Amino acid sequence: MDQWATSERGGSYDLLLDLAGRNSRAALEDALREAVREGRLAAGSRLPSSRVLARDLGVARNTVADAYGQLVAEGWLTARQGSGTTVAERPAPRRRPATAAGSAALDVGHGPRTGPTELVPFATGLPYVLWPGSPDLSAFPRSAWAAATRRALHSAPNEAFGYADPRGRPELRTALSGYLARVRGVRTDPDRLVLCSGYVQAVGLLARVLRGRGARRVAVEEVGLPDLRTLLRASGLGTLTLPVDADGAQVGALDQAGGEVAAALLTPAHQFPMGVRLSPERRTAVTAWARATGGLVVEDDYDGEFRYDRQPVGALQGLAPDHVVYAGTASKSLAPGLRLAWIAVPPHLLEAVVREKRLADHQSPVLEQLTLAEFIESGAYDRHVRRMRLHYRGRRDRLVAALAERVPGARVSGIAAGLHVLVELPPEAGPLDAVITRAHRRGLALGGLPTFGAPPGAAAALVIGYGTPPEHAFAGALDLLCEVLAEPGR
Amino acid sequence: MDQWATSERGGSYDLLLDLAGRNSRAALEDALREAVREGRLAAGSRLPSSRVLARDLGVARNTVADAYGQLVAEGWLTARQGSGTTVAERPAPRRRPATAAGSAALDVGHGPRTGPTELVPFATGLPYVLWPGSPDLSAFPRSAWAAATRRALHSAPNEAFGYADPRGRPELRTALSGYLARVRGVRTDPDRLVLCSGYVQAVGLLARVLRGRGARRVAVEEVGLPDLRTLLRASGLGTLTLPVDADGAQVGALDQAGGEVAAALLTPAHQFPMGVRLSPERRTAVTAWARATGGLVVEDDYDGEFRYDRQPVGALQGLAPDHVVYAGTASKSLAPGLRLAWIAVPPHLLEAVVREKRLADHQSPVLEQLTLAEFIESGAYDRHVRRMRLHYRGRRDRLVAALAERVPGARVSGIAAGLHVLVELPPEAGPLDAVITRAHRRGLALGGLPTFGAPPGAAAALVIGYGTPPEHAFAGALDLLCEVLAEPGR
Repeated sequence: MDQWATSERGGSYDLLLDLAGRNSRAALEDALREAVREGRLAAGSRLPSSRVLARDLGVARNTVADAYGQLVAEGWLTARQGSGTTVAERPAPRRRPATAAGSAALDVGHGPRTGPTELVPFATGLPYVLWPGSPDLSAFPRSAWAAATRRALHSAPNEAFGYADPRGRPELRTALSGYLARVRGVRTDPDRLVLCSGYVQAVGLLARVLRGRGARRVAVEEVGLPDLRTLLRASGLGTLTLPVDADGAQVGALDQAGGEVAAALLTPAHQFPMGVRLSPERRTAVTAWARATGGLVVEDDYDGEFRYDRQPVGALQGLAPDHVVYAGTASKSLAPGLRLAWIAVPPHLLEAVVREKRLADHQSPVLEQLTLAEFIESGAYDRHVRRMRLHYRGRRDRLVAALAERVPGARVSGIAAGLHVLVELPPEAGPLDAVITRAHRRGLALGGLPTFGAPPGAAAALVIGYGTPPEHAFAGALDLLCEVLAEPGR
Repeated sequence: MDQWATSERGGSYDLLLDLAGRNSRAALEDALREAVREGRLAAGSRLPSSRVLARDLGVARNTVADAYGQLVAEGWLTARQGSGTTVAERPAPRRRPATAAGSAALDVGHGPRTGPTELVPFATGLPYVLWPGSPDLSAFPRSAWAAATRRALHSAPNEAFGYADPRGRPELRTALSGYLARVRGVRTDPDRLVLCSGYVQAVGLLARVLRGRGARRVAVEEVGLPDLRTLLRASGLGTLTLPVDADGAQVGALDQAGGEVAAALLTPAHQFPMGVRLSPERRTAVTAWARATGGLVVEDDYDGEFRYDRQPVGALQGLAPDHVVYAGTASKSLAPGLRLAWIAVPPHLLEAVVREKRLADHQSPVLEQLTLAEFIESGAYDRHVRRMRLHYRGRRDRLVAALAERVPGARVSGIAAGLHVLVELPPEAGPLDAVITRAHRRGLALGGLPTFGAPPGAAAALVIGYGTPPEHAFAGALDLLCEVLAEPGR
């Protein structure tokens, strides 16, 4: 009870607040699962009795007891005779990377110092970082970008510098609509594209539109961007969790949810962080669900350009452009600091999305937009992407070869695309959190699967972002990784 | 009843939705006043009887009857024996500027085609525009900006291109903190500055922070940015309206509201659009209110750089840095399309504001930030502002001289600063809406005071944005304005 009372008086993630209004067993289960997953309910802490919680929430005692029972069955909670219900020990608790002594003292977040879509903590203070989520920032094409900026600045009409269309510059929407059709099979036109400041803003806009239309819940992949749920909750939306297997997200759960889920946020081309792609059967199933229920699919195509061994997987949006929001970004192909992302919006949502964009920041900044348009139209973007694809494929091959040679027990997966792979630990390396701690002590920042929402019982695996280090640091980071993995664990 | 029933089924501005939860007489009055002011309740339309509305809202009939009575007394509503309560005719209904035939067909807003802080409609389709809210876009320093971008791109550290501090680049926060102290008397430091995508985003972040802390209402100036109320309402906040007189906003109403107002959004240096400044007595009063109640003052210093005839009025924030959020922008000094704004945040709000910024878009784009830092540190920004101050003062002098000569009955005010003046019509010009219609027919877009929220009975005045036209069009626009005003009205 003490733990509970404390958490009640806690910060913004107050558990009772989370649970308030979750009157059904399913909603209660979801909320508790999230609270455990996100560390708001710490391992070992005791939950209130079902009688007390039922009274506080104003629900039937059986509702709470059933929810507890289900979560015990799933391994999230533990029930012991005489000591009540406690939160189960996690196989690998998430840890907070060390922050640089010299960095700002401001604590800008809860949990690991990462935000939505920000997977690389921005101040690890460590010389080597293999977190996923960032391209090689040392490869940003500075001179070419400066030249494109100059050309864009000189050819822009005066009105480009003023308040204008919230969707963004027509030059860029035209360039992108052609590029996305050619490279990703997206079916759209410039009028239906909306430029956003990153995928996080796009999700925020869509969440507010859906909430404004009465939506209550949105489905997300069980493993994925750490703070997507936080962002959705901030917009008043609950979540349904879709487990992920070798065929991608288990979208069948959407049908079972019986129409109460308004949208599904997916990474079909390259599941983050598992690295699998959504199977053809599930692509068909999820678009059928959308057509049948009026549900929306949001396709996060964060690294669609980087596929190495086969033809790229086309965008899901091409199958059902009226039911899928396609979301792309320059965060992986160029740099996250540009904050350039775009969504192709079905006609029935367009006006509402544009209205939310106006209320959010009126329009995204124009100069990057004009510059990217110039970059695409001049062919510089295609050249840059081709060069980077070779660059990252080279790194991936070095990583796979080094692990095969020096840590033969490690199992690498998700290598066909993107800027990260999954590395399942060899048993002799010891537990995941011990490996991460050893790496941190030697100056290497690593992220494990639990940080991205993996359930208890998931494989003990690292998510290795081989795109992240600058070129001069890649060899050193790889070397440290092999050393740490090859060392016998405690 | 029909009108009411129709509006009930209407769009997102559904009136019943506005009124729901407004259980006190004061809250109900505010909501109705807003609905009339913003045109959601059209002049002449009939309101439901107090009995019916009281039933629908679940409040006492007297509450509704009292609210109706107050609004009749204020001139917003009309009560006629036998025909119930109707919305009063406005002295000068807001009108929607014509849009270009070739512009996108998408209707991206309600009411005039302007958004928060976007006062110049982005597609009037007219050759001449004297709406306020925009600098002269033809004067954007393209070459100097391109050169600064190139220098910034080449000297930036790699990590600048990645996910980083949600507050923005330290280079710019350092440069701004020195600049704001020197030029505007702002007391802050780089750690407490947060870069935002325009003032509209800053208001959105602050509104969500305040709402998250339980705030219900925020005070706004009666005349001001047209959609500020929409933005606040979207964040779940109601508004208290502060009338504006020759001494600025009547902040005494804050004390009368008895602690239930969480913040006041003001334009102290140069009230928009009336052009007056907040008197020293009211500056003292509003900071005393903030200290006594824990209320927050948000100081919108949108054109603080442009004061022509006297020393600049220092920032209010300097008087009470722990109680005032100072908001500045490059939208007037450089260009709105850059979407560069900044807020200096009191320590007790900083973490919450940063959290909302992360959830909104993680961080603002970095290249403009690095470029503006370079622009400020190299002295180019000061030179540009000095040049533009001369440029705009020259335009203001031409405008005042032309009106004095050709329309001697017009009364010009608010000339000491900024990029706009108020022009009270000479009686012979006819009613305000007729003048605006005549101007539109001749190719000149004009905005009147009612568009910015002026109450019934306010002076029939135009808000003339003399900064808006590109240099080649200024003489033509001025000539047309004088012609239209000198023409005898119907």
